[in-house]
Amino acid sequence: MTKNIYKGRIVNLNLETVTLPNGATVELEVIHHPGAAAVVPLKDERTVILIRQYRHAAGGYLYEIPAGKLHPGEDPRECAQRELEEEIGYKAGRLDHVTSAYTTPGFTDEVIHIYKATQLQHGQQCLGHDEVLALAEFPLERTIAMIREGVIKDAKTIVGLQCVYLQVLVENIGEEG
Amino acid sequence: MTKNIYKGRIVNLNLETVTLPNGATVELEVIHHPGAAAVVPLKDERTVILIRQYRHAAGGYLYEIPAGKLHPGEDPRECAQRELEEEIGYKAGRLDHVTSAYTTPGFTDEVIHIYKATQLQHGQQCLGHDEVLALAEFPLERTIAMIREGVIKDAKTIVGLQCVYLQVLVENIGEEG
Repeated sequence: MTKNIYKGRIVNLNLETVTLPNGATVELEVIHHPGAAAVVPLKDERTVILIRQYRHAAGGYLYEIPAGKLHPGEDPRECAQRELEEEIGYKAGRLDHVTSAYTTPGFTDEVIHIYKATQLQHGQQCLGHDEVLALAEFPLERTIAMIREGVIKDAKTIVGLQCVYLQVLVENIGEEG
Repeated sequence: MTKNIYKGRIVNLNLETVTLPNGATVELEVIHHPGAAAVVPLKDERTVILIRQYRHAAGGYLYEIPAGKLHPGEDPRECAQRELEEEIGYKAGRLDHVTSAYTTPGFTDEVIHIYKATQLQHGQQCLGHDEVLALAEFPLERTIAMIREGVIKDAKTIVGLQCVYLQVLVENIGEEG
Protein backbone atom coordinates (compact mmCIF):
# COMPACT_ATOMS: atom_id res chain seq x y z
CA MET A 1 0.00 0.00 0.00
CA THR A 2 1.36 3.39 -0.98
CA LYS A 3 0.25 6.77 0.31
CA ASN A 4 1.65 9.86 -1.36
CA ILE A 5 2.53 12.53 1.21
CA TYR A 6 4.03 15.18 -1.05
CA LYS A 7 4.92 15.63 -4.70
CA GLY A 8 7.30 18.53 -5.30
CA ARG A 9 9.93 19.77 -7.69
CA ILE A 10 12.61 17.28 -6.58
CA VAL A 11 11.09 15.34 -3.74
CA ASN A 12 8.25 12.85 -4.13
CA LEU A 13 7.55 11.41 -0.68
CA ASN A 14 5.53 8.23 -0.15
CA LEU A 15 4.58 6.18 2.89
CA GLU A 16 4.80 2.58 1.69
CA THR A 17 3.60 -0.51 3.55
CA VAL A 18 6.00 -3.27 2.63
CA THR A 19 6.47 -6.95 3.51
CA LEU A 20 10.20 -7.62 3.93
CA PRO A 21 11.95 -10.93 3.03
CA ASN A 22 11.90 -11.86 6.76
CA GLY A 23 8.08 -11.67 6.78
CA ALA A 24 7.86 -8.42 8.78
CA THR A 25 5.42 -5.80 7.52
CA VAL A 26 6.70 -2.26 7.96
CA GLU A 27 5.73 1.23 6.87
CA LEU A 28 8.62 3.01 5.15
CA GLU A 29 9.15 6.64 4.18
CA VAL A 30 10.48 6.62 0.62
CA ILE A 31 11.64 9.62 -1.40
CA HIS A 32 11.25 8.76 -5.07
CA HIS A 33 13.82 10.58 -7.17
CA PRO A 34 14.28 10.56 -10.98
CA GLY A 35 18.01 9.82 -10.63
CA ALA A 36 20.94 12.03 -11.48
CA ALA A 37 24.14 12.20 -13.46
CA ALA A 38 27.52 13.64 -12.45
CA VAL A 39 30.78 14.19 -14.32
CA VAL A 40 34.45 14.24 -13.35
CA PRO A 41 35.80 16.70 -15.96
CA LEU A 42 39.49 16.21 -16.76
CA LYS A 43 40.99 19.23 -18.51
CA ASP A 44 44.13 17.24 -19.11
CA GLU A 45 45.29 13.86 -17.85
CA ARG A 46 45.87 15.12 -14.31
CA THR A 47 43.76 18.30 -13.93
CA VAL A 48 40.18 18.25 -12.64
CA ILE A 49 37.65 21.06 -12.93
CA LEU A 50 35.48 21.28 -9.81
CA ILE A 51 32.71 23.69 -8.93
CA ARG A 52 32.38 25.47 -5.62
CA GLN A 53 28.62 25.59 -5.19
CA TYR A 54 26.34 27.23 -2.62
CA ARG A 55 24.16 24.59 -0.96
CA HIS A 56 21.44 25.84 1.34
CA ALA A 57 20.99 22.38 2.90
CA ALA A 58 24.71 22.29 3.74
CA GLY A 59 24.68 25.86 5.06
CA GLY A 60 27.43 27.08 2.73
CA TYR A 61 29.66 26.26 -0.23
CA LEU A 62 30.74 22.75 -1.22
CA TYR A 63 33.33 21.57 -3.74
CA GLU A 64 31.49 19.31 -6.16
CA ILE A 65 31.70 17.74 -9.57
CA PRO A 66 29.08 19.06 -12.04
CA ALA A 67 25.81 17.16 -11.60
CA GLY A 68 22.09 17.40 -11.99
CA LYS A 69 18.95 15.36 -11.98
CA LEU A 70 17.63 13.50 -15.00
CA HIS A 71 14.86 15.13 -17.01
CA PRO A 72 11.88 12.80 -17.63
CA GLY A 73 12.99 10.05 -20.01
CA GLU A 74 16.52 11.46 -20.29
CA ASP A 75 19.47 9.12 -20.80
CA PRO A 76 21.99 9.56 -17.95
CA ARG A 77 24.77 10.10 -20.50
CA GLU A 78 22.86 12.97 -22.15
CA CYS A 79 22.15 14.44 -18.72
CA ALA A 80 25.87 14.28 -17.91
CA GLN A 81 26.76 16.14 -21.16
CA ARG A 82 24.02 18.71 -20.52
CA GLU A 83 25.02 19.42 -16.92
CA LEU A 84 28.71 19.60 -17.88
CA GLU A 85 28.03 22.31 -20.44
CA GLU A 86 25.40 24.20 -18.39
CA GLU A 87 27.46 24.28 -15.18
CA ILE A 88 31.06 24.69 -16.37
CA GLY A 89 30.79 25.61 -20.09
CA TYR A 90 32.55 22.57 -21.55
CA LYS A 91 31.47 19.73 -23.83
CA ALA A 92 33.10 16.33 -23.51
CA GLY A 93 34.64 14.77 -26.61
CA ARG A 94 34.67 11.53 -24.68
CA LEU A 95 32.49 10.36 -21.78
CA ASP A 96 33.26 7.10 -19.93
CA HIS A 97 30.93 5.59 -17.33
CA VAL A 98 32.72 5.32 -13.97
CA THR A 99 30.08 3.94 -11.59
CA SER A 100 26.45 4.25 -10.56
CA ALA A 101 25.61 4.55 -6.87
CA TYR A 102 22.65 4.75 -4.50
CA THR A 103 23.14 8.02 -2.62
CA THR A 104 21.29 7.02 0.55
CA PRO A 105 19.23 3.82 0.09
CA GLY A 106 17.73 3.95 3.60
CA PHE A 107 15.16 6.49 2.44
CA THR A 108 15.47 7.21 -1.29
CA ASP A 109 15.75 5.33 -4.59
CA GLU A 110 18.04 8.02 -6.02
CA VAL A 111 20.81 6.59 -8.18
CA ILE A 112 23.59 8.84 -9.46
CA HIS A 113 25.41 7.84 -12.64
CA ILE A 114 28.98 9.12 -12.63
CA TYR A 115 31.08 9.68 -15.77
CA LYS A 116 34.62 10.73 -16.59
CA ALA A 117 34.76 13.50 -19.22
CA THR A 118 37.87 14.00 -21.37
CA GLN A 119 38.74 15.78 -24.65
CA LEU A 120 36.95 18.89 -23.35
CA GLN A 121 35.90 21.59 -25.83
CA HIS A 122 34.52 25.00 -24.99
CA GLY A 123 30.72 25.25 -24.94
CA GLN A 124 28.20 27.65 -23.40
CA GLN A 125 27.79 27.91 -19.64
CA CYS A 126 24.14 28.47 -18.71
CA LEU A 127 23.36 28.65 -14.98
CA GLY A 128 19.87 28.55 -13.50
CA HIS A 129 18.89 31.48 -11.24
CA ASP A 130 19.15 29.07 -8.30
CA GLU A 131 22.69 27.94 -9.14
CA VAL A 132 25.46 29.87 -7.39
CA LEU A 133 28.84 28.47 -8.27
CA ALA A 134 32.40 29.21 -9.37
CA LEU A 135 34.93 27.00 -11.18
CA ALA A 136 38.15 25.78 -9.59
CA GLU A 137 40.89 23.64 -11.15
CA PHE A 138 43.03 21.22 -9.15
CA PRO A 139 45.55 18.49 -9.88
CA LEU A 140 43.70 15.15 -9.54
CA GLU A 141 46.19 14.03 -6.88
CA ARG A 142 45.52 17.20 -4.87
CA THR A 143 41.76 16.46 -4.78
CA ILE A 144 42.52 13.08 -3.15
CA ALA A 145 44.40 14.95 -0.41
CA MET A 146 41.48 17.43 -0.13
CA ILE A 147 39.14 14.47 0.55
CA ARG A 148 41.53 13.19 3.25
CA GLU A 149 41.71 16.70 4.78
CA GLY A 150 37.90 17.06 4.84
CA VAL A 151 37.90 19.96 2.36
CA ILE A 152 35.93 17.96 -0.22
CA LYS A 153 32.92 16.51 1.57
CA ASP A 154 30.27 15.78 -1.04
CA ALA A 155 29.73 12.02 -1.40
CA LYS A 156 29.23 11.81 -5.21
CA THR A 157 32.33 14.01 -5.67
CA ILE A 158 34.42 11.77 -3.40
CA VAL A 159 33.20 8.66 -5.24
CA GLY A 160 33.89 10.14 -8.69
CA LEU A 161 37.35 11.51 -7.88
CA GLN A 162 38.52 8.37 -6.05
CA CYS A 163 37.25 6.07 -8.83
CA VAL A 164 39.06 8.10 -11.49
CA TYR A 165 42.23 8.32 -9.36
CA LEU A 166 42.25 4.55 -8.75
CA GLN A 167 41.77 3.98 -12.53
CA VAL A 168 44.86 6.13 -13.19
CA LEU A 169 46.86 4.18 -10.57
CA VAL A 170 45.85 0.83 -12.11
CA GLU A 171 46.72 2.08 -15.63
CA ASN A 172 50.13 3.28 -14.43
CA ILE A 173 50.86 -0.05 -12.73
CA GLY A 174 49.83 -1.77 -15.99
CA GLU A 175 52.26 0.39 -17.97
CA GLU A 176 55.09 -0.18 -15.49
CA GLY A 177 54.46 -3.97 -15.47
CA MET B 1 10.20 31.28 5.85
CA THR B 2 9.88 27.60 6.61
CA LYS B 3 6.80 25.43 6.14
CA ASN B 4 6.88 21.91 7.53
CA ILE B 5 5.29 19.44 5.09
CA TYR B 6 5.88 16.19 6.94
CA LYS B 7 7.61 14.97 10.08
CA GLY B 8 8.18 11.22 10.09
CA ARG B 9 10.44 8.56 11.54
CA ILE B 10 13.43 9.40 9.31
CA VAL B 11 12.27 12.13 6.99
CA ASN B 12 11.45 15.67 8.10
CA LEU B 13 10.44 17.61 4.98
CA ASN B 14 10.33 21.41 4.87
CA LEU B 15 9.58 23.95 2.17
CA GLU B 16 12.05 26.77 2.84
CA THR B 17 12.06 30.22 1.25
CA VAL B 18 15.68 31.23 0.96
CA THR B 19 17.65 34.19 -0.40
CA LEU B 20 20.76 32.88 -2.16
CA PRO B 21 24.15 34.69 -2.26
CA ASN B 22 23.30 35.89 -5.82
CA GLY B 23 20.19 37.70 -4.49
CA ALA B 24 17.65 35.26 -5.95
CA THR B 25 14.84 34.17 -3.67
CA VAL B 26 13.83 30.54 -4.15
CA GLU B 27 11.66 27.97 -2.45
CA LEU B 28 13.59 24.78 -1.67
CA GLU B 29 12.48 21.33 -0.59
CA VAL B 30 14.76 20.30 2.27
CA ILE B 31 14.82 16.95 4.04
CA HIS B 32 16.25 17.50 7.52
CA HIS B 33 18.05 14.41 8.76
CA PRO B 34 19.76 13.79 12.14
CA GLY B 35 22.92 12.54 10.43
CA ALA B 36 24.37 9.06 10.40
CA ALA B 37 27.50 7.06 11.15
CA ALA B 38 29.02 4.19 9.18
CA VAL B 39 31.93 1.85 9.83
CA VAL B 40 34.44 0.00 7.65
CA PRO B 41 35.14 -3.05 9.87
CA LEU B 42 38.56 -4.62 9.26
CA LYS B 43 38.77 -8.15 10.68
CA ASP B 44 42.47 -8.15 9.94
CA GLU B 45 44.69 -5.74 8.00
CA ARG B 46 43.26 -6.76 4.63
CA THR B 47 39.83 -8.32 5.35
CA VAL B 48 36.60 -6.30 5.40
CA ILE B 49 33.27 -7.41 6.84
CA LEU B 50 30.36 -6.16 4.71
CA ILE B 51 26.65 -6.69 5.11
CA ARG B 52 24.30 -7.69 2.32
CA GLN B 53 21.16 -5.80 3.26
CA TYR B 54 17.64 -5.77 1.82
CA ARG B 55 16.72 -2.23 0.77
CA HIS B 56 13.15 -1.64 -0.29
CA ALA B 57 14.04 1.69 -1.94
CA ALA B 58 16.69 -0.08 -4.04
CA GLY B 59 14.37 -2.97 -4.89
CA GLY B 60 16.70 -5.65 -3.56
CA TYR B 61 19.89 -6.41 -1.66
CA LEU B 62 22.90 -4.08 -1.48
CA TYR B 63 26.40 -4.68 -0.17
CA GLU B 64 26.99 -2.05 2.50
CA ILE B 65 29.16 -1.17 5.44
CA PRO B 66 27.30 -1.18 8.80
CA ALA B 67 25.57 2.18 9.34
CA GLY B 68 22.68 3.86 11.03
CA LYS B 69 21.27 7.23 11.90
CA LEU B 70 22.25 9.16 15.00
CA HIS B 71 19.95 9.02 17.99
CA PRO B 72 19.04 12.49 19.38
CA GLY B 73 22.17 14.01 20.93
CA GLU B 74 24.29 10.96 20.12
CA ASP B 75 27.98 11.36 19.32
CA PRO B 76 28.74 9.95 15.82
CA ARG B 77 31.53 7.81 17.29
CA GLU B 78 29.13 6.19 19.78
CA CYS B 79 26.61 5.67 16.99
CA ALA B 80 29.32 3.95 14.92
CA GLN B 81 30.17 1.60 17.83
CA ARG B 82 26.48 0.87 18.45
CA GLU B 83 25.65 0.11 14.81
CA LEU B 84 28.77 -2.04 14.43
CA GLU B 85 27.73 -4.25 17.33
CA GLU B 86 23.99 -4.30 16.53
CA GLU B 87 24.44 -5.10 12.84
CA ILE B 88 27.44 -7.42 12.74
CA GLY B 89 28.07 -8.44 16.36
CA TYR B 90 31.51 -6.92 16.81
CA LYS B 91 32.94 -4.18 19.02
CA ALA B 92 35.86 -2.09 17.80
CA GLY B 93 38.96 -1.88 20.00
CA ARG B 94 39.98 1.06 17.84
CA LEU B 95 37.86 3.46 15.80
CA ASP B 96 39.50 6.03 13.45
CA HIS B 97 37.55 8.78 11.71
CA VAL B 98 37.91 8.42 7.93
CA THR B 99 35.75 11.19 6.49
CA SER B 100 32.37 12.91 6.83
CA ALA B 101 30.28 13.46 3.72
CA TYR B 102 27.03 15.07 2.58
CA THR B 103 25.05 12.22 0.99
CA THR B 104 23.02 14.36 -1.42
CA PRO B 105 23.22 18.09 -0.60
CA GLY B 106 20.75 19.11 -3.32
CA PHE B 107 17.83 18.17 -1.07
CA THR B 108 19.03 17.02 2.35
CA ASP B 109 21.37 18.13 5.13
CA GLU B 110 22.26 14.51 5.93
CA VAL B 111 25.94 14.08 6.83
CA ILE B 112 27.38 10.60 7.28
CA HIS B 113 30.44 10.19 9.50
CA ILE B 114 32.57 7.26 8.37
CA TYR B 115 35.01 5.38 10.62
CA LYS B 116 37.52 2.58 10.26
CA ALA B 117 37.11 -0.13 12.93
CA THR B 118 40.04 -2.36 13.90
CA GLN B 119 40.95 -4.64 16.84
CA LEU B 120 37.50 -6.25 16.58
CA GLN B 121 36.16 -8.25 19.51
CA HIS B 122 33.00 -10.35 19.58
CA GLY B 123 29.89 -8.58 20.87
CA GLN B 124 26.15 -9.17 20.57
CA GLN B 125 24.38 -8.81 17.22
CA CYS B 126 20.90 -7.31 17.69
CA LEU B 127 18.90 -6.67 14.52
CA GLY B 128 15.72 -4.61 14.36
CA HIS B 129 12.63 -6.37 12.91
CA ASP B 130 13.04 -4.16 9.82
CA GLU B 131 16.71 -5.11 9.25
CA VAL B 132 17.24 -8.02 6.85
CA LEU B 133 20.93 -8.66 6.34
CA ALA B 134 23.70 -11.24 6.20
CA LEU B 135 27.46 -10.87 6.78
CA ALA B 136 30.05 -11.33 4.04
CA GLU B 137 33.85 -11.10 4.32
CA PHE B 138 36.07 -9.95 1.46
CA PRO B 139 39.71 -9.01 0.97
CA LEU B 140 39.86 -5.17 0.95
CA GLU B 141 41.45 -5.23 -2.50
CA ARG B 142 38.58 -7.40 -3.82
CA THR B 143 36.01 -4.80 -2.65
CA ILE B 144 37.79 -2.16 -4.78
CA ALA B 145 37.32 -4.43 -7.80
CA MET B 146 33.66 -5.01 -6.80
CA ILE B 147 33.13 -1.23 -6.92
CA ARG B 148 34.72 -1.10 -10.39
CA GLU B 149 32.50 -4.00 -11.53
CA GLY B 150 29.31 -2.34 -10.22
CA VAL B 151 28.68 -5.07 -7.61
CA ILE B 152 29.09 -2.60 -4.72
CA LYS B 153 26.86 0.37 -5.49
CA ASP B 154 26.06 2.10 -2.20
CA ALA B 155 27.71 5.53 -2.05
CA LYS B 156 28.78 5.58 1.64
CA THR B 157 30.21 2.07 1.22
CA ILE B 158 32.22 3.12 -1.86
CA VAL B 159 33.51 6.21 -0.04
CA GLY B 160 34.51 4.25 3.07
CA LEU B 161 36.20 1.36 1.26
CA GLN B 162 38.12 3.58 -1.17
CA CYS B 163 39.29 5.96 1.59
CA VAL B 164 40.58 3.04 3.68
CA TYR B 165 42.21 1.41 0.63
CA LEU B 166 43.95 4.66 -0.34
CA GLN B 167 45.19 5.03 3.29
CA VAL B 168 46.71 1.55 3.07
CA LEU B 169 48.37 2.42 -0.26
CA VAL B 170 49.85 5.64 1.18
CA GLU B 171 51.11 3.79 4.29
CA ASN B 172 52.74 1.10 2.14
CA ILE B 173 54.43 3.72 -0.06
CA GLY B 174 55.63 5.41 3.16
CA GLU B 175 57.12 2.12 4.41
CA GLU B 176 58.78 1.36 1.08
CA GLY B 177 60.23 4.88 0.83
